[in-house]
Amino acid sequence: MDDGRKVLVVVMDGLGDRAVKSLGQRTPLQCANKPNLDWFAANGTSGIMDVISPGVRPGSDTSHLALLGYDPFEVYTGRGPFEAAGVGLVGKPGDVAFRCNFATVDSDMNVIDRRAGRIKTPDTTMLASAINGMQLGNITATVREATEHRAVLILEGPDLSPYVSDVDPHALSSIQSSEPLRPEALVTAQAVNEFVHKAHEILRDHPVNRRRIEEGLVPANALLPRGAGVFPNIQSFQERYGISASGVAGVSLIRGICRVCGLEVIEETGCTGGTDTDMDAKACAALRELERKDFVLMNVKATDVNSHDGDPRSKIESIERLDSMAKIIKDSIPEGAIVVLTADHCTPVELGDHSGDPVPLTIYSDDSIKDDVTSFDEISCARGALGRIRGVNLMPILLDKANRSEKFGA
Amino acid sequence: MDDGRKVLVVVMDGLGDRAVKSLGQRTPLQCANKPNLDWFAANGTSGIMDVISPGVRPGSDTSHLALLGYDPFEVYTGRGPFEAAGVGLVGKPGDVAFRCNFATVDSDMNVIDRRAGRIKTPDTTMLASAINGMQLGNITATVREATEHRAVLILEGPDLSPYVSDVDPHALSSIQSSEPLRPEALVTAQAVNEFVHKAHEILRDHPVNRRRIEEGLVPANALLPRGAGVFPNIQSFQERYGISASGVAGVSLIRGICRVCGLEVIEETGCTGGTDTDMDAKACAALRELERKDFVLMNVKATDVNSHDGDPRSKIESIERLDSMAKIIKDSIPEGAIVVLTADHCTPVELGDHSGDPVPLTIYSDDSIKDDVTSFDEISCARGALGRIRGVNLMPILLDKANRSEKFGA
Repeated sequence: MDDGRKVLVVVMDGLGDRAVKSLGQRTPLQCANKPNLDWFAANGTSGIMDVISPGVRPGSDTSHLALLGYDPFEVYTGRGPFEAAGVGLVGKPGDVAFRCNFATVDSDMNVIDRRAGRIKTPDTTMLASAINGMQLGNITATVREATEHRAVLILEGPDLSPYVSDVDPHALSSIQSSEPLRPEALVTAQAVNEFVHKAHEILRDHPVNRRRIEEGLVPANALLPRGAGVFPNIQSFQERYGISASGVAGVSLIRGICRVCGLEVIEETGCTGGTDTDMDAKACAALRELERKDFVLMNVKATDVNSHDGDPRSKIESIERLDSMAKIIKDSIPEGAIVVLTADHCTPVELGDHSGDPVPLTIYSDDSIKDDVTSFDEISCARGALGRIRGVNLMPILLDKANRSEKFGA
Repeated sequence: MDDGRKVLVVVMDGLGDRAVKSLGQRTPLQCANKPNLDWFAANGTSGIMDVISPGVRPGSDTSHLALLGYDPFEVYTGRGPFEAAGVGLVGKPGDVAFRCNFATVDSDMNVIDRRAGRIKTPDTTMLASAINGMQLGNITATVREATEHRAVLILEGPDLSPYVSDVDPHALSSIQSSEPLRPEALVTAQAVNEFVHKAHEILRDHPVNRRRIEEGLVPANALLPRGAGVFPNIQSFQERYGISASGVAGVSLIRGICRVCGLEVIEETGCTGGTDTDMDAKACAALRELERKDFVLMNVKATDVNSHDGDPRSKIESIERLDSMAKIIKDSIPEGAIVVLTADHCTPVELGDHSGDPVPLTIYSDDSIKDDVTSFDEISCARGALGRIRGVNLMPILLDKANRSEKFGA
């Protein structure tokens, strides 16, 4: 292992696209000026990658699991546990996690504002800590605030099941009783209902809410769990591959994926996960991590945001900022290191959502076999020597190139 | 689903080939003049496709199952049920279907003509209806004539099994007793033998056969079941993908595949499944279907027939007629629709049978990313941006492009 090589995987979120009418039937990647991204394509080996499987539209969570080598069809247990991990709450396998909204209910428990007036921290922090640690028989509830009006809930105890219905009515109507969706989930459903009831009693008279009412704001007097999922029994990255690893990401859900897989998550100032991300700072953080770790995955979100906004011009600008970021990486590649440029999924600007198209992929190292690809884009990479691979193939390929994989057979 | 796009899949049967000596080591596709097929390649994204799996020689049935997104290794249960469905008999999951020949036997039940003098309808229609509905204890036998001397038999009842041997001796010898190939198939084997015996008694003295003997023709006095297969428990296309679909095909077996998968099968005048198929009429029928349905698969058989005949010149002519058909489609593509050109398998003319070579594939839509493929043939498509996919990948890719697939994860 001592001669193992470093690996940096740069995930440019939602980067790939389809032919865009307003760009003359070209993709934003084809239109952007990106000499540094192209340098990697020209000096590396390129291909295209079905992150999950051909035609399957990846979420950001399932795609990052696949990029880290975990088959999402085996280990993905719903968004709840990964959102919880995103705010730092990593439960044990078997613990059940929920996404929650702070909401406003009337005296009959009808939801009158699903986001409690878009409450945020520090109010949510104080309210969450008032509920955190609640005992429900032999079940413990852990609560933490997340972004804006959101929170996460983890139930820890014997015989829990994720097969319970949502309390959140997803509309302005009466909150729902959590029901067991399978017989073995009765205890969990009862715990959820008891939690919602007790949380309401605590929140109703909490000083934060009394203050909000005095200020003319709606109180956050209920917490509405939804999307139950069990923490998967995932072998950590270190255990699975025998390497140390960090994740550099601004997006909470992706941090959660990294944490559940056992990567150390780096919180870098200036990396917010929005279009105002300081990409250069993120690249510097990733390169710093690469000095002390074997493997670093970094996610840069901006292109995905532009695509969800349906804005091809901004996407081109983001790609050009990614290119500046790529220059920093190019100029500081540690000796022998392997650098991967790719995306977690395509987000076509005309679609405004993730698609199942394959993503471009370049794997660079100083011993790459060079194909004749000289541009990092959807079409050029498709002609590359890597052909068409799957997301779960990436880690074995990288471990092999990094001299870190075992021979199968003699 | 309302903004879902239409999909037309054009399956040119047995289209792909190998290098043909008499064509100067080129394939019929490389030799044909086909500006319209090439237009789709030039304006779409191309690749090659292993319809089943690399090197596996597909039947027309297994290949069409794969093209419709059903893994033939999971759902293919033998040819019987799909032949039965081809003539309109779609049994329930668990019913056992057989292909049969009308045959001529002597008084010792030796087969003296396996095709009963190539008997055909209306004789077979009358004979089949004389046997149809026979009761074998609590098992009901449904019989219907098929093409030429063929018929299909479906057994319906409790505890049936497809694991029984053929009655058809596949040679001029004594008819065989159907034997259970597994212990649980004893009841089915007994029912088959009883059916064959009773059918012989009914057919022997049937007026149609008395008339045939008077005319100097051999009587069709036996029905010989073979190729038992159970109707698979297939989720219908509508249920599986949430879209409406039609199949336009002249070949009975392919109609059967479509029917079992829940596609509406269109019977179009002039579409016979032979080389005399009016391809243009078939294209018009497919385009009409596309107005009222989300998805249409059409199969055009001529090239496969030319290949089975070992006739490269005729195959080139058929390809040029396919090209005229492609012009009709090109000129009438509904807005936003996705058009797929491909084959169900290669049928090399020098081999005269299906081969396991990958087939050429072009997926066209108005937002296709354009690769540099400008000719629709085996070699040019292999350089395309789709790379090399499998038949079962096609439907997920098309559903994604049609905005009809669910995101996996968040």
